[in-house]
Amino acid sequence: MELWFSEYQTKNVKLSFRVKDLVYTKQSKYQYISVFDTEDFGRVLMLDDTVMLTTRDEFMYHEMISHVPLLTHQNASKVLVIGGGDGGTVREVLKHPVKEVHLVEIDEEVVETSKKYFPTISCGLSDERVKIFYEDGIEFVKNHKGYDIVIIDSTDPVGPAVGLFSAQFYKDVSNALSEDGIMAAQTETPVLFPELVKRIYDGISSAFTFTNPYTAVVPTYPGAFWTFTMGSKSIDPLSREIIPETNFDTKYYNPKLHKAYFTLPPFLEDIILPVEE
Amino acid sequence: MELWFSEYQTKNVKLSFRVKDLVYTKQSKYQYISVFDTEDFGRVLMLDDTVMLTTRDEFMYHEMISHVPLLTHQNASKVLVIGGGDGGTVREVLKHPVKEVHLVEIDEEVVETSKKYFPTISCGLSDERVKIFYEDGIEFVKNHKGYDIVIIDSTDPVGPAVGLFSAQFYKDVSNALSEDGIMAAQTETPVLFPELVKRIYDGISSAFTFTNPYTAVVPTYPGAFWTFTMGSKSIDPLSREIIPETNFDTKYYNPKLHKAYFTLPPFLEDIILPVEE
Repeated sequence: MELWFSEYQTKNVKLSFRVKDLVYTKQSKYQYISVFDTEDFGRVLMLDDTVMLTTRDEFMYHEMISHVPLLTHQNASKVLVIGGGDGGTVREVLKHPVKEVHLVEIDEEVVETSKKYFPTISCGLSDERVKIFYEDGIEFVKNHKGYDIVIIDSTDPVGPAVGLFSAQFYKDVSNALSEDGIMAAQTETPVLFPELVKRIYDGISSAFTFTNPYTAVVPTYPGAFWTFTMGSKSIDPLSREIIPETNFDTKYYNPKLHKAYFTLPPFLEDIILPVEE
Repeated sequence: MELWFSEYQTKNVKLSFRVKDLVYTKQSKYQYISVFDTEDFGRVLMLDDTVMLTTRDEFMYHEMISHVPLLTHQNASKVLVIGGGDGGTVREVLKHPVKEVHLVEIDEEVVETSKKYFPTISCGLSDERVKIFYEDGIEFVKNHKGYDIVIIDSTDPVGPAVGLFSAQFYKDVSNALSEDGIMAAQTETPVLFPELVKRIYDGISSAFTFTNPYTAVVPTYPGAFWTFTMGSKSIDPLSREIIPETNFDTKYYNPKLHKAYFTLPPFLEDIILPVEE
């Protein structure tokens, strides 16, 4: 029997994996969690039938959402990660000399699933610098302040994650940051959702002094060409000098390309920075 | 009735498009050609059930396979394109002040299909600088010389295209190039086929003084993160000064990133340049 698992990336495009082993499924309070093994992408974590990560390409996403803001800031001590209960972002953040990492994940079952089935991804969650809050990130940022870095490692803007893409939320994040604080958020694909990318960009722009999108490839995400956006209160990311090497290993992030990641292809510039006539 | 068209990107991964309209199908002497319209990726050209291009993302591939070698060479007059009967690469090549473009496509039906159903892609094929040869590229390069640029715009290495990835073929291409000539080839994805990428790299290395892989995103290709490789006889691509603007429009290629495209993520460096102990 051939078992296939498909993600509807849009109503009209599907990405399907042949399932070697169905490892785990659970309906949590918030979403349907499933874990299965594939031949080409390793182990896959799906939430509500949407690919969260595969062990084959998760490094691309987690490295880029973490190292770009942290190596831009250069002196981060206190970091907040919103979403990202799998722990991949926390794992990368911990490669930096940070003192405190707060992870705010609404669904404890995601953390438990990752701890059990994704040891190479959740490995940082037991680090003594990490504190996990099982709360709604939208409320959390209203009541916690003083972060040097906030990383928005959210699901797509459907269901409970919608509020994580609103202009008001970005303003609350800005208020939760210290004076030279930097936010980095996953901000979707311009290949399939250009209007969404533009709307998110405008929301972040309304809340920060500097708004700098950057890009990476995430093969198993819709459109594969992915954007992240940095919002910065006082540091101009493009004027920072970046040391062309790191004292830790990466597989996708290359410090020699740090500045280049912010140089966008023209079609993406046209989406987010339309020329005013 | 919902009509879906799926590509097996590997035995275990499928990308599927919902078909709005099935436009055209034909079994040519060499392959099964199909054309259909989709909601999210526009019109799609498939050869033997493999996506050749979609009108939504073809610019990424065609710009990168053309402008990178041409703007590295900076003085190309005579260009050979092998494969690429759809005309997308020729369209981009013609944005440069070249005098002659030879297109060698084994399957006349591909050219005819593109002329009829992909006018925005095939538009350059009627340019008076272009001459089309319906021949096997492997034989063609043995008997034609003096090109400044050769672009290998091939299908994947299965069936008749296998020979377009052999070390002998790359040597013949080198011989077909003028003394400062440059080849650029599509060289597959390291995400799904690392051994293949390595084998191609070694083949090109054996035939050229300089071998420089570079990367781009092509969302509808397997793995989405795509490599091209430049083989150069005497020009060192990395020591060229690149003018940071073009006198023509592009949507993906950005001359400010020209050098950055050659800076590879560590996981790809590890595949093609393994550290010798």
